[in-house]
Formats: sequence, structure tokens, C-alpha cells
Amino acid sequence: MSEYRLPHEEIRFVLEELIGLKEVAKLPGLTSVTIEDASAILDQAGRFASETLAPLNQIGDHEGAALENGIVRTASGFAEAYKAYSEAGWCASAGDPSYGGQGLPRLINTALFDVWNAANLAFALCNTLTDSATALLSQHGTDEQRNLYLTRLLSGEWTGAMAMTEPQAGSDVGALSCSAQPDGDTYRVKGQKIFISWGDHDLTNNIVYLVLARLPDAPSGSKGISLFVVPKFVPDKNGNPSARNDVACIALENKLGIHASPTCIMEFGANEGALGWLIGGPHRGLAAMFTMMNSARLAIGHEGLGIAERAYQQAKTYAAERLQGHDRDGKPLAIINFPDVRRMLLSMKARLEAMRALCYDAALSVDFAAHHPEEATRVLHDDRVALLTPIVKAWCTDGAVEVTSTNIQIHGGAGYIEETGAAQLFRDARITPIYEGTNGIQALDLVRRKLGSDDGLAMNALIEEMRQFDGALSTSDDGAIAAIRGRFAEARAALARTTHQLLNDLRNDPDRAEAAATPYLELAGTVLGGYYMARSALIAKENISMKTGNTKFYQAKLATALFYAESILPKSTALARAATGGADTVSYMAPEDF
Amino acid sequence: MSEYRLPHEEIRFVLEELIGLKEVAKLPGLTSVTIEDASAILDQAGRFASETLAPLNQIGDHEGAALENGIVRTASGFAEAYKAYSEAGWCASAGDPSYGGQGLPRLINTALFDVWNAANLAFALCNTLTDSATALLSQHGTDEQRNLYLTRLLSGEWTGAMAMTEPQAGSDVGALSCSAQPDGDTYRVKGQKIFISWGDHDLTNNIVYLVLARLPDAPSGSKGISLFVVPKFVPDKNGNPSARNDVACIALENKLGIHASPTCIMEFGANEGALGWLIGGPHRGLAAMFTMMNSARLAIGHEGLGIAERAYQQAKTYAAERLQGHDRDGKPLAIINFPDVRRMLLSMKARLEAMRALCYDAALSVDFAAHHPEEATRVLHDDRVALLTPIVKAWCTDGAVEVTSTNIQIHGGAGYIEETGAAQLFRDARITPIYEGTNGIQALDLVRRKLGSDDGLAMNALIEEMRQFDGALSTSDDGAIAAIRGRFAEARAALARTTHQLLNDLRNDPDRAEAAATPYLELAGTVLGGYYMARSALIAKENISMKTGNTKFYQAKLATALFYAESILPKSTALARAATGGADTVSYMAPEDF
Repeated sequence: MSEYRLPHEEIRFVLEELIGLKEVAKLPGLTSVTIEDASAILDQAGRFASETLAPLNQIGDHEGAALENGIVRTASGFAEAYKAYSEAGWCASAGDPSYGGQGLPRLINTALFDVWNAANLAFALCNTLTDSATALLSQHGTDEQRNLYLTRLLSGEWTGAMAMTEPQAGSDVGALSCSAQPDGDTYRVKGQKIFISWGDHDLTNNIVYLVLARLPDAPSGSKGISLFVVPKFVPDKNGNPSARNDVACIALENKLGIHASPTCIMEFGANEGALGWLIGGPHRGLAAMFTMMNSARLAIGHEGLGIAERAYQQAKTYAAERLQGHDRDGKPLAIINFPDVRRMLLSMKARLEAMRALCYDAALSVDFAAHHPEEATRVLHDDRVALLTPIVKAWCTDGAVEVTSTNIQIHGGAGYIEETGAAQLFRDARITPIYEGTNGIQALDLVRRKLGSDDGLAMNALIEEMRQFDGALSTSDDGAIAAIRGRFAEARAALARTTHQLLNDLRNDPDRAEAAATPYLELAGTVLGGYYMARSALIAKENISMKTGNTKFYQAKLATALFYAESILPKSTALARAATGGADTVSYMAPEDF
Repeated sequence: MSEYRLPHEEIRFVLEELIGLKEVAKLPGLTSVTIEDASAILDQAGRFASETLAPLNQIGDHEGAALENGIVRTASGFAEAYKAYSEAGWCASAGDPSYGGQGLPRLINTALFDVWNAANLAFALCNTLTDSATALLSQHGTDEQRNLYLTRLLSGEWTGAMAMTEPQAGSDVGALSCSAQPDGDTYRVKGQKIFISWGDHDLTNNIVYLVLARLPDAPSGSKGISLFVVPKFVPDKNGNPSARNDVACIALENKLGIHASPTCIMEFGANEGALGWLIGGPHRGLAAMFTMMNSARLAIGHEGLGIAERAYQQAKTYAAERLQGHDRDGKPLAIINFPDVRRMLLSMKARLEAMRALCYDAALSVDFAAHHPEEATRVLHDDRVALLTPIVKAWCTDGAVEVTSTNIQIHGGAGYIEETGAAQLFRDARITPIYEGTNGIQALDLVRRKLGSDDGLAMNALIEEMRQFDGALSTSDDGAIAAIRGRFAEARAALARTTHQLLNDLRNDPDRAEAAATPYLELAGTVLGGYYMARSALIAKENISMKTGNTKFYQAKLATALFYAESILPKSTALARAATGGADTVSYMAPEDF
């Protein structure tokens, strides 16, 4: 397995020049972070990632997790790494300072997870889930619940896990049948949950489950779901883990990847019922869980980003080292000299950079939505986050599968051998388009909930913002910028007209809109990616002209943006066609015709 | 793991109505096969595949192959299955009748491998390699070599393996350093070979290696390579395996997939040198090996086809059984009812059917090139095979990765669990874009060797054939056919203008042509697929109008062709752009800029 190296200059560029850490640093209620602070934090994280987390990645894949006599054992080194991670305060980075958090902006936390996910996806997933649990408890927990749980989740003493899925209730959450019986002030939760990531482990002495279940008087479907916090060990008066709760991991799944992350089948209440506490009122569980899910969906997009970064690093290292063939003077050539290999690397780099910009920009909107002093700005960014969340999740995870696959391809036969580690990245990446709502569900969310709920207002605002950016592009007399401008205009127009068509379909033919959802989401991701790359190109061009900063870096940035415009953006018109004409044809096939 | 079921009606359609088994059946020197014969053969193959091979697929994945005390043990049931396969005469299907073969057309053999690959890719690979070895020995072996080896390869007593790659010589075959010293009439071969599929096993009592090595006086590079046949056990006078040759499997690779296929590191001549016999004259090895490689490259395309068929069958079965959500009356719905799931299934079905047509059409040209009485026709089809080979290999294997990935996606969380078997298909498929020349190498072959060698003559003839087909499409007043016609015309024009551009680049800027090769190959595959789907649509429409055959089948065929035209064909213009504008940008990034 290759090493991991912090892509410091790239992250700095995105934080400082492209997205705007400065604006975020001014927000009240967040710890103010200058670009120098961010740089120091990233250096620290990069060191920890390279030295501690990355070397465990392949070990975790080989050993996996094991269920032995009811106890889930994680792979060698994971418990020690988790201890070091929590002791260094990384669990607290984005948390509320009132409960021991560091109050860093989401933007910085996104950069941190860019690093953690790249270094060791299976390890980072545990912290992603804890982060999402903290987001939920911060917003929906009582003071008492926050005092008890938040402090310990942020210190890293305990971890969080989401218990939603049941065998019959996957994408259709409303079908779940887990039950909760009132028992004094508490509840007794019973039922089986599957696909619980980090549902049990030996990293900490307690685990906090957020469990969806039905109260006895619950209406059927998704309107009858309540949310409970169920600790693995019930805390005593001092908050120390005490009596073992009636919850157990009864099996681990044997998965394609992320072997080091135990995916548990959890049995709640096999005996007297697992003690649970209601969060956010009866039958209000799904709304509360959505807080967690939205945070988690962005986080899964960040997983896609991280693993794509790791794959890109491995591919370029291999391509620069692997010798095949000779130049005209008989000197051995590294394969990076071959145009087709460079094309592959550029396709990875271009997609990766667009994904990073998208993830960080959505994070900036999370910060603005939560902390901006003006309500209008908060609302605007809240809508933007809602719109971008399914795109971040789906486009960055589909991109991760593509980029990790290209990494294998650059390795040739060696890529297919497990020892190399390229195969692991590909296997690990393949979960990301599935969990926290499949990418198909994300696309339906984008079309039905996001376009549908505001009649396209947020999307059309974004398209208008992109249209106005054309003015900035038009001022440049650079040939590359002009080429980017042309391709971007075509792609943006394809998004605009497809959005218009889908808004019509939502009113008149919702099935057609649903059949169009996936190509539409890919279209939106592709065009947005083009927007960030065009902005990057303009900034790069300015730095090159002014001779500020590292010219080589900006030249590569400009070349990558041009590649994106010429090789990736043209897909937009094809996707627009698939989302309109192609969607029609779906209805011509009845289920029995396949 | 799901079952395998012969897609009988689909294969019949392609053989009989789309590609033209009747024309092949008239060729001299081939066993004449009517559509009824073909149907009976396929039924038999389908039964054997379903009952014997498919059930071993997951067992093979779990157990893999093992090297124990110098002996390679295959997974449970594989030796018995191989015995049954060879006893049923399947090893002989395409072989020369003078040596015990059945002389069936390649077209029929392609249909058979459609079945074998779908049922059990790792198992079928062994026979694919033997098939390629027979092709080589038929063409380049002496009478004596054919009598000794061909008969036993066709009976299935022995298997064949290709020993080309060395650690430093992958895509650059010319870098190989394995040596061969003359020793009387024979040679002593020494050196290490890697990535030898089915390089050793316990299925048969002998294995025939075709080994590339250098004679002492060999010029450097690819012009100094000779080919040797090296048996694992040297045959005695009666052709029975006798003394153990100096060749050994020293390690097996731990791979992402096709676990049941032992991928061997082979040591030739660790002691006295492995006894080998020259094939096809000194320093003429690469030309001879290309016979095998071309046959093998088509065969790897067929692997892509087979595994995509298996994934499609699994996906549609799961989608029809998995319940999520309800209709308006509260009745549980199978997920196949959701438009996004049907879109995914259609995308698999459309790509799969286009891949099948391409594979079978290339096979028809192989038969025509070898057996047509008129030389002009033979030459025309020989050129067609040369042109189509890299497209069959790369486009059908990239398609296999895509289709098996979509199968996982349709399964959701269950697709990520190994037990389901969807993950295995995805892992198995991932080798196909790599071996027998990576898909990047195929693309370079298409552009440099195929376009370059005849200045685009064969490709332009194909484009002209497609252009003339527009006449047939124009006679239909059907709306779907008209839509297909429009998209196909756009796509064909994109291929025509990109071909023109690449022919220019080959003369003036070969690096630019190389950077364009991969998108160009994908463009060619996409447009060709559109051609076959358009032809299928016209045939289907005629059957529907005339009320001949199974109308439901033809309606589905028409709907699938329309989906292809609306959702897949529009990629062509984007690929054309990537192959022209995008290729330019590759040169802007120097190796050190990544």
C-alpha cells in the first residue's frame, strides 16, 4: 500500500483562494481560524494521518473485525490509534464548545475528514458516525442528554452509531417494525437492526446507539417513527458506564470492503428490552434522524473525496516509478510519459479537484446557514446546503468508484493483486454510493424534495449565479479561459433547460421525473464541478499573470481545469439528453419485460 | 449467488436474425450448423452451465486455488466439472476436425463462451486459454506438433497456458529477458514468468506452455523474441506425459477476483533448463503469439459479455423479488416498479445487448475471413476482425465493470455483502479491462495499428456501411425508429469526424492521437453498439408488424434499442470532444506537474 501525503497546497488553495475561509472565520459562534491556523491544524492532521492511520489501512483490510464470544475485536493497532486520535482532541474538532468541543467551522472539519478518509476510510467512518450523532444530539437532545452524551462523544470516550435499517426496511425507512414500550420515564426497545457500521467494537468502553423504533400507538409508515438513544452500557448517576444494556451484536457481515469497520447485525431487547430514552418527541424520529442523515450524507461525500485523493496519490507515484519502454535515445521511460497514462491521471485529478471544491463549498454553506448574523443569508445558505447535499453525496461517491478504478487500470496487472493496495481502495470506495441512502435515493431527493419543494428556486438561483460568473470569464483574453468559458456555457445551458423540463415533469408526469433523476443529478454534479474548475482557472490565471505564489502549481491547476472543460464537461449535453429523452423510454418497459 | 439461466431467445435472435448464422453455415470447411442445431447445442450447454458450472462459481471464489508442496489444488468440484466438460466434448467445439475438433463456426463457439463465462468466469478462463493455444498451434505448429498437442488439447486431456509477461515486461513485451539455449533439436528455456493464468492446476495430467524467450543471438526488443512450446511433463514416444520438465509454479497471486483461477508465478529452468520446442522460426515469436493474443483478446471481450449477462440476470431477479414501499392501494411493491430501478436495469440490458451483437458480429467475420471461398471477402473480413478486436476487448470489458457495478447498486446494502454474489461478479469483471493487453493498449492498437496501417480504410468502410443503413431506417414510419435514426446519425457523424481528425493527428502529431485513443475507442464502441441496436430495432419492428414470433420479446427489444439511442448514444458527441479538444490538454501537463 502506498503512503499518504497531505495535499497541503491544494487544500490551502481551496480553503483560502477558491471557497473563502476568511469569510467563515468572521462568523460569530465559531472558533475563528486564520489560514495560518488552518495550515498548522492540517499539518498536525497530515502527520497523524501519515504516521498512524495510513499504515493501518491495509492491516485493517487483511484482518478485518471479528466477533468472538459476543465481543467485537477490531484489527491490530486500531484501538491504539483511536486512543491517540481522541487524546489529540480530533473527536472534538467540530463540536459545541459548551460540551468540550473546539467549535471549528465545518469547512475546517471537512478538510480534516478529507485527510482522515484518505488515510484510512474504515477507521474514519467510526468518527464520521460519532460526528453525526453529535450533530443530532446537539440539535434534538435535552440539556440532560447533551450533558451526558455530548461531552463523552466529543472527548472520544464513547462513540456513536445509527440504527435505522431493518431487513425489510432499507430505502423504505417507513417499513421498520422495531418497537419501543414505555417503561416509566424510559422505554424498552426491541427488534433487529442490520448494516450497523461500527455497531460494536473494542475502541471505547461505551457506544451510543440512535435507534429508530415505533411506540405502541404509532401510526403506520414513516409518520409513526420515534428516535431513541440507547447506550450499550447504561450510565450511572455520574455518567459512568454501568449495567450492560440489553443490546448485542449477533453477527458481522462479510463485505466487499471497509473490512476494518465492523458492520453489525444488532439485536435490541432479546431479553427484557433495551433501555432507551426518547429524543425529540413521540413520532418525530424521522425528522430528528434527518439531521443526522444530512450531516452523514455530506460526510459520505467526503469519504468519496478522501479515497479518490488516496487513489490519485497512489496512481501518480506508481506512474512515475514504473518503467516500460524507452525513449528515442533508449532511455527507460516511466509510464507517466505516455499520453494515455497522463490522460488517466488527468481524469482522476480533474474529477478529484472538482469534488473537493464541491465538498468544501457545501461545508461553507453549512457554516453560513448556522452562524451568519443575517437571517436572509442563513436561509439562502440553508437552501443551498439542502440542494447540494444529495449532489455531494452521490457525485463524489460515484467519482470515487471511477477514480479508484482508474488507479487499478494505471497499475495494470499489479492493480489486480491485493498486495498493491489499489484493489482495496476500489473495494472500499464501492460502499460509498450505497450507504446513507443509495445514490438513486439521493437523485430522487434532489428531484422530488429539493426541486419539488421550492419549485426549483434554489437550483435556479445557483444556475443564475453560474450564469453571472460568465461575466468574470469574459474579461480574460487567455485562450484556455476562453475555451473553458465556451464549454461551461454549453453545459450550464444543458442544466438550465433540463431543470426547466424536470419542473414541468414534476407537475405533469412524476414518473418521468423519477426516471430522469439519476442522469439529472450527474448533470448537476458535472456542471457544478465545471463551475468550480472555471473559478479555479481564473484564480490560477491571475496568480500566473501577477507572478504570485507557486506558478507551477497554478499552471497545473489551469491545465486541469481545461482538461475538465474539454473532456468532462461535454458529458453534460449527453446527460441532459438521457434525463429527457432517455427517461421517456423507461416507461416503455414493464417489469415483466426484463 | 443467483442461478444462471440460458438467455435462449436472445441468443437465437442475435444468431439467426441479427448477425446471420445462415450465411456462416454455408461456409466450406466448417461444420454446417442450422438454427435448430444451434438451439440444441445451446440447450445442452445451458443445462451444463446451470447445473454444473454456475453452482461452483461462489465456491471457487471462497476457496480459491492453493499452492501446497509444489502442487496447485483447485477449488472443490472444479476437477470433476472439468472432467465432465471435456468428456462432453466442449473442449473440441471450435477445433480442427483433423485433430478431433468439431469444426463448429467461431460464431457458435462465441455463443458457447457467452454461456460458460456467465456461468463461471474463472472456470471458463482455463478453456479460453486452451482455445487460444489451439488457435496458435493450428496456425504455426508443425504437423508433428499438431499431432502431439492439438489432439490432446481438443480432447481436454491437457490444457494450454500463455507465458509472456515478466516483472519488467508487461505492456512492453519487447523488454522480456527469458532465454532459450539450443540443445540438439530442442531448447533449454530459463526465466521467470508472472501473471500466468491457469499456469498450474490439478485438472489434467499435463499442461502446454507457450513461452516467449530469447535465443542467444537474438536482437534486442520485440524483434528478438521466439516462441516455444514447453510441456509440464515431456511426452514420451506415444505422447504420454513422462519426465517432469524443469518448470514449476513458485507462487500464486492473491487477487481481487477470479479466485478459482490460479494466477501463477512460473519458474522455467531453475535447474537444467526447461525442454522446449521452437514454434514458427527463430525471432518470429511475437508474430505467432499475436495469433494467440488476437484470439484471446476477442475471448476476453466475450468474458465481459458473459459476466454482464450474469449480472443482469441477478439484478432483474432481485429487483423483481425485493419489496420496498407500497402502491396507492397499500400493496407491497417490488423495486422493479420504481422508475430509477428500471432505468438501471435498462442501462444494463441495453449495454449487454449491444455488446453481444458486437461480439457475435466479430465472430462472424472471423469465420468469413477463414473460410469464405472468395479472397476479396476473406480480406475484407480479415480487416474487419483486425479493426473490431480491440473494440470487442475494451468496450465489452469496460461495459462489464459498469454492468456488474450497477448490479451491486440495484442490490443496495445487500450488494456489498459477499454472500449475495453481486460483489464477486464485480471483482471478477475488474480483471477483464486489464489482461491480454490493458484497454489503454487496445485503444493504442486501434489508433496506431488499425487506423494507422491502412490510413483508416477499414474504419471508413465500416462508417460508410453504417451510413448506408440510414436508408433502411428512413423507410420506417415508426416514431421510435425515427428517434433512433436521428440519434444514430448524430453519433455516426461524431465518429466520422473524429476518425478524420485522428488520421490527421497520426501524420502530424502522434502524441495527440495517443492521448485521444481511449475516448476514441469508447466512441467507436458506443456508435457500433448503436448500429447493432438500430438494426435490432428494425428487425423487431418488422416482427411486431407482421405478428411473427414473440411480440413481447420484440417490443422489449425495440424499447431497449430506443433507450440505447436516447441514453447511451448521446455520449458520442462528448467522447468526440474528449478525443479532440481533451487530447490537446494532456500535453499541457508535464509528468512532474501531477
